[in-house]
Amino acid sequence: MSDRAQEAADWWATSITDIEPGEIRLRGYPIEELIGAVSFPQMIWLMVRGELPSEDEARLLELTLVAAVDHGPQAPSIAAARMAVSCGLALNNAMATGVNLLGDVHGGAGQQCMGILQELKTAVDQGESPTTAARALVAAYKDRGTFLPGFGHRFHPLDPRRDPLMHAVERAARDGVVEGHYLEVALALESVLAEGSRPIPMNIDGATATIYAELGLAPELARGLFVLSRSVGLLAHAREQQLEPTRIKGPLPKSIPATYTGTPPRSVPHTSPTDGHP
Amino acid sequence: MSDRAQEAADWWATSITDIEPGEIRLRGYPIEELIGAVSFPQMIWLMVRGELPSEDEARLLELTLVAAVDHGPQAPSIAAARMAVSCGLALNNAMATGVNLLGDVHGGAGQQCMGILQELKTAVDQGESPTTAARALVAAYKDRGTFLPGFGHRFHPLDPRRDPLMHAVERAARDGVVEGHYLEVALALESVLAEGSRPIPMNIDGATATIYAELGLAPELARGLFVLSRSVGLLAHAREQQLEPTRIKGPLPKSIPATYTGTPPRSVPHTSPTDGHP
Amino acid sequence: MSDRAQEAADWWATSITDIEPGEIRLRGYPIEELIGAVSFPQMIWLMVRGELPSEDEARLLELTLVAAVDHGPQAPSIAAARMAVSCGLALNNAMATGVNLLGDVHGGAGQQCMGILQELKTAVDQGESPTTAARALVAAYKDRGTFLPGFGHRFHPLDPRRDPLMHAVERAARDGVVEGHYLEVALALESVLAEGSRPIPMNIDGATATIYAELGLAPELARGLFVLSRSVGLLAHAREQQLEPTRIKGPLPKSIPATYTGTPPRSVPHTSPTDGHP
Amino acid sequence: MSDRAQEAADWWATSITDIEPGEIRLRGYPIEELIGAVSFPQMIWLMVRGELPSEDEARLLELTLVAAVDHGPQAPSIAAARMAVSCGLALNNAMATGVNLLGDVHGGAGQQCMGILQELKTAVDQGESPTTAARALVAAYKDRGTFLPGFGHRFHPLDPRRDPLMHAVERAARDGVVEGHYLEVALALESVLAEGSRPIPMNIDGATATIYAELGLAPELARGLFVLSRSVGLLAHAREQQLEPTRIKGPLPKSIPATYTGTPPRSVPHTSPTDGHP
Repeated sequence: MSDRAQEAADWWATSITDIEPGEIRLRGYPIEELIGAVSFPQMIWLMVRGELPSEDEARLLELTLVAAVDHGPQAPSIAAARMAVSCGLALNNAMATGVNLLGDVHGGAGQQCMGILQELKTAVDQGESPTTAARALVAAYKDRGTFLPGFGHRFHPLDPRRDPLMHAVERAARDGVVEGHYLEVALALESVLAEGSRPIPMNIDGATATIYAELGLAPELARGLFVLSRSVGLLAHAREQQLEPTRIKGPLPKSIPATYTGTPPRSVPHTSPTDGHP
Repeated sequence: MSDRAQEAADWWATSITDIEPGEIRLRGYPIEELIGAVSFPQMIWLMVRGELPSEDEARLLELTLVAAVDHGPQAPSIAAARMAVSCGLALNNAMATGVNLLGDVHGGAGQQCMGILQELKTAVDQGESPTTAARALVAAYKDRGTFLPGFGHRFHPLDPRRDPLMHAVERAARDGVVEGHYLEVALALESVLAEGSRPIPMNIDGATATIYAELGLAPELARGLFVLSRSVGLLAHAREQQLEPTRIKGPLPKSIPATYTGTPPRSVPHTSPTDGHP
Repeated sequence: MSDRAQEAADWWATSITDIEPGEIRLRGYPIEELIGAVSFPQMIWLMVRGELPSEDEARLLELTLVAAVDHGPQAPSIAAARMAVSCGLALNNAMATGVNLLGDVHGGAGQQCMGILQELKTAVDQGESPTTAARALVAAYKDRGTFLPGFGHRFHPLDPRRDPLMHAVERAARDGVVEGHYLEVALALESVLAEGSRPIPMNIDGATATIYAELGLAPELARGLFVLSRSVGLLAHAREQQLEPTRIKGPLPKSIPATYTGTPPRSVPHTSPTDGHP
Repeated sequence: MSDRAQEAADWWATSITDIEPGEIRLRGYPIEELIGAVSFPQMIWLMVRGELPSEDEARLLELTLVAAVDHGPQAPSIAAARMAVSCGLALNNAMATGVNLLGDVHGGAGQQCMGILQELKTAVDQGESPTTAARALVAAYKDRGTFLPGFGHRFHPLDPRRDPLMHAVERAARDGVVEGHYLEVALALESVLAEGSRPIPMNIDGATATIYAELGLAPELARGLFVLSRSVGLLAHAREQQLEPTRIKGPLPKSIPATYTGTPPRSVPHTSPTDGHP
C-alpha cells in the first residue's frame, strides 16, 4: 500500500476487531470460538476491557445489567423513544433517540458517583478514615447545594435495587472476588448521609458505581454499561408502542393543552423593522 | 383522580413496568427478585416478550447476542460513533449516533429475512415443497434485481458466524427445543442459492433470523435485538476513541482531500437574482 | 496520489463543496462572495439545488421556512428536545433528538403530499380533468382507510398557515413566477374533500407541498426543508428549557403516575426456567 | 381543569407558542401575519429572543447563517449524515445524526469563544487595556496547552469567512448598529496572537462569536445558530448521497482495510473462566 493509503488505513486503526475475508477476531479470539463459549456479559467485558473476566466477575457485571433495564415510561428516555415510534420511526431510530437522552443527569450519575468513590478512596489511602473523608465530602456538597450523585431518589424512599446489588458486592468482597475498598467508602458515605434528619440511601447508580469501581472499570464505562442495560427497556417500550395506533404522540393528551405564559396577543408592526422584507 | 388527570395517566399506559414508591415490578416480577435470579438474556426476553424463557431458549438468544457485537470500524455505525467521540460527545450520545445508523440497510436485514422465512413457511404450510417455494422466491428477487436479505456478504465469502449459529439451531431442532420449520426453509433457500455459478451462503442476519423465527419472535425485534448486540461494539469503539487525542475526526486523514466533482469556480453574479438583497 | 489513496478521495466525492487551504467554494461560488450577497433562503436553495434562485423563487421558499418553525411543546419533537435538555444534553444534542422525530408521520407528510400532487398532475397531463383525478384518488384513500397527507389537522379546523401560503402561490402563478399546474390539482383535491359532510381543508404540509412542487423540488426535500424550519422551534424551546431548573423531565408531572395495564404482581419461580442461572 | 390536570398543563408551560383551534401565535404574533412580513432570519431571532430585530440586526445574523452552511464531507458531521443515508435512513434521521455531532469540539467553539470575549470585556470594563487583558488570557491558554477557541484553523492558514464577517461587524460598529466593545477585544486578541512566530488569525467561530456578542446573544445560542446554518449543508449532502447507489458506506473504500493494532490471534481458553457457561 502507498504511504497515503496506509495513512488512511491507520486513521481507522483499532485494537478491538480484526477482519479478513472469512475471519472475524475480537480482541484476538475468533468469533466462531466465542459463540457458545462465552455468555453475553462475558462478551461485553471482553469487548470493553480486552480480556475475558472470571465467572465471578461476569456475574457481578450481569447483576448490574439486569438491574437497570427499565424504570417505566415516565423516564424521559423511554417517553422519547415511544414518541419516536408514534412518529413513524423504526426501532433503531427510536432506541437511538432514547439512548441520546441518557446524558449527564439521566445516565451519567453512575459515572459521577465513581469519581466520588475514587476521591474518597484516595483520601483513605492517604490515611484518613472513611467516615472522616465522607463527612468532608458531604459538607462540600451541602455548601455547593448540589445533588450527591448515586444517593437519594426523587421517587423511591429506598431504591429496591440497592439491597440485592450491595449484598452481592458484600458477598464478593467476603469471598475475595473483589478487594472491597470502594465498598467500604461507599457504605461510609451512606452512613454519613443517614446522620441527618432524613437518611439519603444509596440508589441504583450508587450501588452500580460501587460494583464497577470494585471491578476496576473506568468511570466513563459506568455510563456506557447503563446505556446497554437501559437499551433493553427502550426496546421493550418502543416495541409496545409499535403495537398501538397513536400517531404523533405528544407528552399530553389533546384534552390538556400546554399552558402559555408568554407575551399576550399582538400584531406584527406595519412599518419598521421588517418593512418591505422579504 | 379527575377525568382529565386520569386521561393523562392513561396516555402513558404500559404493560411492562409498574412503579410505586419503593417498588419496581417488571412484567409483574419485583426487580429485587429478578436481580441474581435471571441472566441478562433472560431479562431481555422477559422485557420484550412478557414471560421468562426456558434456559434452552435463553441460550439460543444469547448466541445471537454474542455473535453480532462488532464488525470493526469500517461499519458506518461504528465509524460514526468514533467520530462523535472525537467531536466531544459523551458515550451515550456517541452510542446513540451509531444506533441511529442501524437502519433498513445496515441493521434491518434480519428483520427483512424473517419476513422471507415467514413467506416461505406459509407456502410450505399450504403444500409446496421448501425447494419449490425457495426457487420461486429466488427467481422473484432475481427479476427485481435486489439483494436477498440474510444471504451473501460483501466482505466474507463465508460469514464465520454462520456455522456456529446454524449448528446451534440444528441441535435445538433435533432436541425438540424448537420445531425446526423455519430452519428447514432457511436451509432450502441456502441450497437453492448454491445452485448457481457462485453460492451465496447465509450470513449472520440470515442465521439470526432463522433462530428468531424458531423462537417465535416478531420480525421487528430482529432489528431491536441486533441493536442491543451491536451496542456492545459501539461502546467498545467509542471508549477506545475516547483514549485517543484526535479531535474532529473526519472519515479521511487531512492528507487525502475528498474529490470535488461539481461546478468549476465561478463568481456570484453582480446584478440580478440576488440584487439588493439582503 | 496512489491509486488506492485516490480511491479513498473518490469515496467521498461531492459536487457541493470544494475546499483548499484558504478557499471554500460552494457550488462553485467563493464563500467570501456569497456572504453579504445572498440571503439565507437563497443560500439554502443554492446548496440543495446547485444554482441560485430568482428573488421571486427565494421569496416563496422563505414563506414556507417562516411558516413551519413551531407548533408548540405538545409536538413530540419539541417535547423530546426539551426533555433532552433536562437530562443535561447540549443544544446540538437536544436539537438532534427533536429532528430525529420528524419522521414519516410527523415530518414526512409534505413529502408524501408531493407524491400525490405528482400523481394527480400526471393524470391531468394524460387528459383527465383535475376534479375527476382528485375524486378517484380520494375514493382510493377512503377504501384504504388511510389519511390523505397534507389535508386535515387533528387540532385546527382550519390551519391558519394555509391561507397566506396558498394566496402567495396563487399570486406567483398569476404573475408567471410558477406555472400553476400543481396549484390547480391541489385546489381541485381540496374542493373534492369539501364535498363530503365535513370539509378537510389543506394544512401546512399540503400548502407547502404545493409550493415546493411548483418550484420543482424533489419530494424528499420537502421533509428536509421542514426540518430546517422546525429546527428553529427546536432551538427556541431547547433554549427556554435550559433556563428552567427541572431535571430529568418526564412527560407527566410526578403527581400523575403512568397507568399500569400488565400482569399482576407475581414472584420469580424458584425452580426451573432460570434455576441456577446465572 | 382539576388541580392535577392543571399541573400537567403547567408541566409543559412555554412562553414561545400559543395554540388554540384555528390559531397559532408565536411570541404573541399570529402566524398568518408573520408569514410574508418577516424574513427567515428575523423569524429565527424572534423565536429565540422573543422580540423582532431591526433590519440591521437581522442582516448581521443572516451573514453568519450564510457563512457556516458547509465545509465539505471531511467534516465528521457531514460524513456521518452521508453514511446514515447509505444505511437507508430518511433525511430527517440523517440530519439528526449530523447535528448530534456538532458538540463541544466541532460546533461548540463559537459558544466557548463568546465566553472568552465576555471575560476580556469584563477585564476592560474594570480598567484593563484590551491588549493587556488579551495578553494575560493568551498566556493562560499557553500554560494550559489548550486551543484558543475561535482562532486558528487546522486546514486554512486564513479562514476565508473571517474577512467578510469582520468587515460587516466593523461597519455595523461604525454605523452605531452595535456598540463595538466585543469587536474591540476580539481584534485585540487577534493582534496579540499575531505577535508570535506564527499568527493565529480568527476563524469563522471567532468572527461569528464577535457578531453574536455584539448582538447580545447568550453564548449557548452560538452553538444553536451554528446548528441551524450547518443543517443546510447536512441537507444538501444527505440529499446528494440519496442519489448515489452506495449501500452501508463506511469511512474507507473496501480496498483499504482499517489497521488492526490489538492482541494477536488466540484461542478461547477451554477450561475455566467461561467453563460451562452459558
